[in-house]
Amino acid sequence: MSTLKVAIAGATGYAGEELIRILLQHPSIQLTHLAASAKWDRPVALADVFPRFAGQLDLSVESLDPARLASSCDVAFLALPHGVSMDVVPILLKAGRRIVDLGSDFRLRDSAAYAQWYGKPHTHPELLAEAVYGIPELSKEAIARARLVANPGCYATSIILALAPLLRAKLVEREWMVVDAKSGLTGAGRKAEPSMMFSEMNENLWPYKVNHHQHTPEVEQALAPFAGAGGVSLCFVPHVVPMNRGILSTMYLRLAKTATWDDVHATYRDFYREAPFVRLRPQNQWPKIHDVAGTNYCDLAWTVDQAKRGLIVTAAIDNLLKGAAGQAVQNLNVMAGWPETTGLCA
Amino acid sequence: MSTLKVAIAGATGYAGEELIRILLQHPSIQLTHLAASAKWDRPVALADVFPRFAGQLDLSVESLDPARLASSCDVAFLALPHGVSMDVVPILLKAGRRIVDLGSDFRLRDSAAYAQWYGKPHTHPELLAEAVYGIPELSKEAIARARLVANPGCYATSIILALAPLLRAKLVEREWMVVDAKSGLTGAGRKAEPSMMFSEMNENLWPYKVNHHQHTPEVEQALAPFAGAGGVSLCFVPHVVPMNRGILSTMYLRLAKTATWDDVHATYRDFYREAPFVRLRPQNQWPKIHDVAGTNYCDLAWTVDQAKRGLIVTAAIDNLLKGAAGQAVQNLNVMAGWPETTGLCA
Amino acid sequence: MSTLKVAIAGATGYAGEELIRILLQHPSIQLTHLAASAKWDRPVALADVFPRFAGQLDLSVESLDPARLASSCDVAFLALPHGVSMDVVPILLKAGRRIVDLGSDFRLRDSAAYAQWYGKPHTHPELLAEAVYGIPELSKEAIARARLVANPGCYATSIILALAPLLRAKLVEREWMVVDAKSGLTGAGRKAEPSMMFSEMNENLWPYKVNHHQHTPEVEQALAPFAGAGGVSLCFVPHVVPMNRGILSTMYLRLAKTATWDDVHATYRDFYREAPFVRLRPQNQWPKIHDVAGTNYCDLAWTVDQAKRGLIVTAAIDNLLKGAAGQAVQNLNVMAGWPETTGLCA
Amino acid sequence: MSTLKVAIAGATGYAGEELIRILLQHPSIQLTHLAASAKWDRPVALADVFPRFAGQLDLSVESLDPARLASSCDVAFLALPHGVSMDVVPILLKAGRRIVDLGSDFRLRDSAAYAQWYGKPHTHPELLAEAVYGIPELSKEAIARARLVANPGCYATSIILALAPLLRAKLVEREWMVVDAKSGLTGAGRKAEPSMMFSEMNENLWPYKVNHHQHTPEVEQALAPFAGAGGVSLCFVPHVVPMNRGILSTMYLRLAKTATWDDVHATYRDFYREAPFVRLRPQNQWPKIHDVAGTNYCDLAWTVDQAKRGLIVTAAIDNLLKGAAGQAVQNLNVMAGWPETTGLCA
Repeated sequence: MSTLKVAIAGATGYAGEELIRILLQHPSIQLTHLAASAKWDRPVALADVFPRFAGQLDLSVESLDPARLASSCDVAFLALPHGVSMDVVPILLKAGRRIVDLGSDFRLRDSAAYAQWYGKPHTHPELLAEAVYGIPELSKEAIARARLVANPGCYATSIILALAPLLRAKLVEREWMVVDAKSGLTGAGRKAEPSMMFSEMNENLWPYKVNHHQHTPEVEQALAPFAGAGGVSLCFVPHVVPMNRGILSTMYLRLAKTATWDDVHATYRDFYREAPFVRLRPQNQWPKIHDVAGTNYCDLAWTVDQAKRGLIVTAAIDNLLKGAAGQAVQNLNVMAGWPETTGLCA
Repeated sequence: MSTLKVAIAGATGYAGEELIRILLQHPSIQLTHLAASAKWDRPVALADVFPRFAGQLDLSVESLDPARLASSCDVAFLALPHGVSMDVVPILLKAGRRIVDLGSDFRLRDSAAYAQWYGKPHTHPELLAEAVYGIPELSKEAIARARLVANPGCYATSIILALAPLLRAKLVEREWMVVDAKSGLTGAGRKAEPSMMFSEMNENLWPYKVNHHQHTPEVEQALAPFAGAGGVSLCFVPHVVPMNRGILSTMYLRLAKTATWDDVHATYRDFYREAPFVRLRPQNQWPKIHDVAGTNYCDLAWTVDQAKRGLIVTAAIDNLLKGAAGQAVQNLNVMAGWPETTGLCA
Repeated sequence: MSTLKVAIAGATGYAGEELIRILLQHPSIQLTHLAASAKWDRPVALADVFPRFAGQLDLSVESLDPARLASSCDVAFLALPHGVSMDVVPILLKAGRRIVDLGSDFRLRDSAAYAQWYGKPHTHPELLAEAVYGIPELSKEAIARARLVANPGCYATSIILALAPLLRAKLVEREWMVVDAKSGLTGAGRKAEPSMMFSEMNENLWPYKVNHHQHTPEVEQALAPFAGAGGVSLCFVPHVVPMNRGILSTMYLRLAKTATWDDVHATYRDFYREAPFVRLRPQNQWPKIHDVAGTNYCDLAWTVDQAKRGLIVTAAIDNLLKGAAGQAVQNLNVMAGWPETTGLCA
Repeated sequence: MSTLKVAIAGATGYAGEELIRILLQHPSIQLTHLAASAKWDRPVALADVFPRFAGQLDLSVESLDPARLASSCDVAFLALPHGVSMDVVPILLKAGRRIVDLGSDFRLRDSAAYAQWYGKPHTHPELLAEAVYGIPELSKEAIARARLVANPGCYATSIILALAPLLRAKLVEREWMVVDAKSGLTGAGRKAEPSMMFSEMNENLWPYKVNHHQHTPEVEQALAPFAGAGGVSLCFVPHVVPMNRGILSTMYLRLAKTATWDDVHATYRDFYREAPFVRLRPQNQWPKIHDVAGTNYCDLAWTVDQAKRGLIVTAAIDNLLKGAAGQAVQNLNVMAGWPETTGLCA
């Protein structure tokens, strides 16, 4: 494998930190540039931002300059606040760079939906059709060819991986698909908000954006091809729980036809036959966050309630890995033609 | 108010600890006896079990002796492991004592259901009809007259308080009522299990007893009178989250008729007009565990999705207070004819 | 006991929250006014600041107006940011109010030391001599007569209670008295700082203000009368640990003369003979935060290393109670001539 | 580098889990055998013990059989309960295997000290002289030649790395060297003890084995060569804090001669010139657990109090990595003649 030069814009957030950690061990990557969206007078040593990297990588973090970013790398990871990357991406594309965007700017194909959910118009709607929504388990070939991959949201990844196979198999009803998700706090990003202080969050728990979270439309969009005409209708309620990492999504579905645990198992098994990062748990063994924390796996488990026509599915991921930086590197591996698991320890 | 002599059997668990804490401040109670189900050679000073009570209560904890328990008190709180109180209660009743049983032995009216869910036959099924399921908001008059009150389970309390008014008003469908509950760890009791060690539970989260928890039948039994013929059918999945206290139950319901947020508000408001411990949150303000931790309140909030005929309700309680010891004292207050809030700080 | 009208300035912080919680249950207090140092356009309902108080207290929180504060109460608790109360206190005193100031403005008697440690000159140095440093176990009579009580810092309380008796008995050397303290996060106050976010603090731990914390001079000042000429010299290093509440201070002392565990016990016992909130632990039983959390106790334990002339003492308190709001109410009780424990559950 | 066959005895504990995790990524290791000290009827799939390894390593864990262990590997890691490895090591040595023992059986050279601190006689005292105490920063050459390396305790590693250079430079007094250490809970091992339950430990903190911890003699033994005649005298108090991983040791020392921050820096810098895993922090920057968690680094920081002749040093490590499994692999790398950092991401 030849080596690619990689830059990270948004290197000072949690996803950026994880990207650096992973890429330091990736055999075919050279980290060449780190940038942050903050306006700084001068570059800051990475070790001053993240002392954990002292002695490991002698790079500074610079304020984001799209031209400089474009000239520094073959591939750029963007982990920027909403609304920032849509103006950076065109510059990178023009320079011939390939991009994995961990933000939300290029996830929705419909610019009107973007404006509605993110509260501002999209400045480059002409690029939305080109962007590939980057779940390698669903779209490996498109990702391999993509110039621009839109890395999915953390909640979205856990939900889509659980539901796509069931929908394609027409096993479940597509209305009122209830998703109750629980997330660790790094999911909220690395910024000081009063409600996210330790003493506010510790020994606490709450729902938020109830039935109104911005990952809903990207899930519905991603599932539409599997659901057929009419698509799906989600009821999605995320909750924050006092832990740093991890998402557990519990999904409450109605069976569209009779099915057993084994039927569901066969459906998933066939769908994920070549997916190294999706694991199916043995019957009656439910996933814990510990089982996936620090890994790029998505663990699926389920139970069937024949009498009530119910199917309960849980999906567990590490929100910063399979939900963000890990999946981003998995996408890069696919784009570069490397084994999907390179640098991802599996 | 005259003073009642009160004993606690099961004083060394978390519910027992909370009962002691509350009753130390209750103006009309004298704690006269503490017992534990453990077999000890000799009594142990309370301060050796719970150093927090050093200097506050000079009682020893003795191994449980039903006769001695009966002779020590006017009213007994039982916070014993499943299957223990059913043999203690008859002795207390014969001695003329009144009882609040925090365990599960007298919650189900059907002895066959008891045997099925708790894995052993009930030794005194003849008492099941007499026991009053103790949610004062629903059964104040029966509790006032009761000799034996079966204090509800922690999850059950949060679910019943949320659903009973909606069912009575025929606002919601009674099938596939989805309840996704999240609980702190004291809910699992004070015993050393490998999976409940700090380093196993911290930074972790998991579902358990999926669609199979033993609180399901007591909820269905308690809701039946409100639901009418056919009763209700629950899909209940509890999760443990890394915090000590608190339960948040998120309920996913389908509307049986058109209704707005205000309609639901009116339904709850009317139902709980005289209930000091149920609070309705303003629209768009969701309850957090912090809002109820250390209190006997149950906070309710909800949202309506007209387009999808959906109603999402959340209920938050402190599992050791409104979910156990607080509700037990509330029941005692009702039994004694005292104001419901006595000693409960509200 | 007649009832006193009490106001709280600084009602929106953690100490303010605890004051409200305690005073709601205090039999001789009427809460008449709540103020915050924030500039608000209009008063905010207490339940909007702290939903836990919904239904319990129907007061609004207003922006701080010293004149209005003075006219609203007999006694004022001030829990304001450093440097704010020194301009409020003179107005309250002039109006004839008594004050318990939980902040640091009136703790140091020396205005030069104040300026050095707090980075600004004191605007009312003439009041420093009058303020009584409020540890009831040491200064009950002066507090009883005081117009202005300076409530000690949380670390300071734990250290002073442990060291004063040992110094008076000349048991320990007064140089290089090492204090390693560990505190929960509410000690840092209720403000959004990046390093205090949940995901920064959880699974983390660090020392700060090493040998340089602003509580050092108030401890040295408070201990001076017990130490005799030359006073004491502290080496104090605080650490933040990922929990909400509690301080454990571990002190490493050298014996000035031969002494046994029993000698130290006798020293403490005699000193705290009439102190209801200081508890001495049995030999070989070390205090845990759980033992004091939610209480106004300070638990002391120690061991003697005869061979090395060492004495190790630990002191545990709840930083928001004996370290702040609880001690403030204890001071009020002493000022009002009520039993020291009124409203403090002991 | 040729590949070594490696076995792990004690694969089901936290150190075992970390060893597996590291060795799965080590380029020159083949994991050939996993054993546990528990008596099992039949082997258990690794994925059933640690679901996180599902799909990564297809080995079973067997009950420990020393002969089978010896025949399975070139090098064995032993992470067994105290007192177990001393009977396994002779069998492995006789079979010509090399060993890294993460337990305490071969750390003390004096069998009487072993019996005193661990409460049982050593069954193979003749091997104590041969065992090399495995801190590569201090004894690289001896480790390279060793058949049997005794991997140090977690606390011990943090303390020795901080103190050895200061003692060799005669910078500090060797009496009453105060060490106040704070450890995460995985340090207590993976066993169900009541006091280590989540709800007992969360929001809690306490000292234990005060001035009496069994790591004290190994530290004193390891530091003796640096201290000269008379050795050192430690006052060591460990505390458990509510986090999973990490140790922070804060050391309170008296200067034996005048020294500045820079002098201490020069001392450490020279001592650790070729040590890739010891990092010196810039002045006034104190280490946090986050900086070392998940890494094999030991971060050192310090401050000098000239007036009081004081030197305060802090050392932070990940207790499971530099404090256990990471250091064990570092030792293996040295034994095998590989770069010290192989497989350890630095």
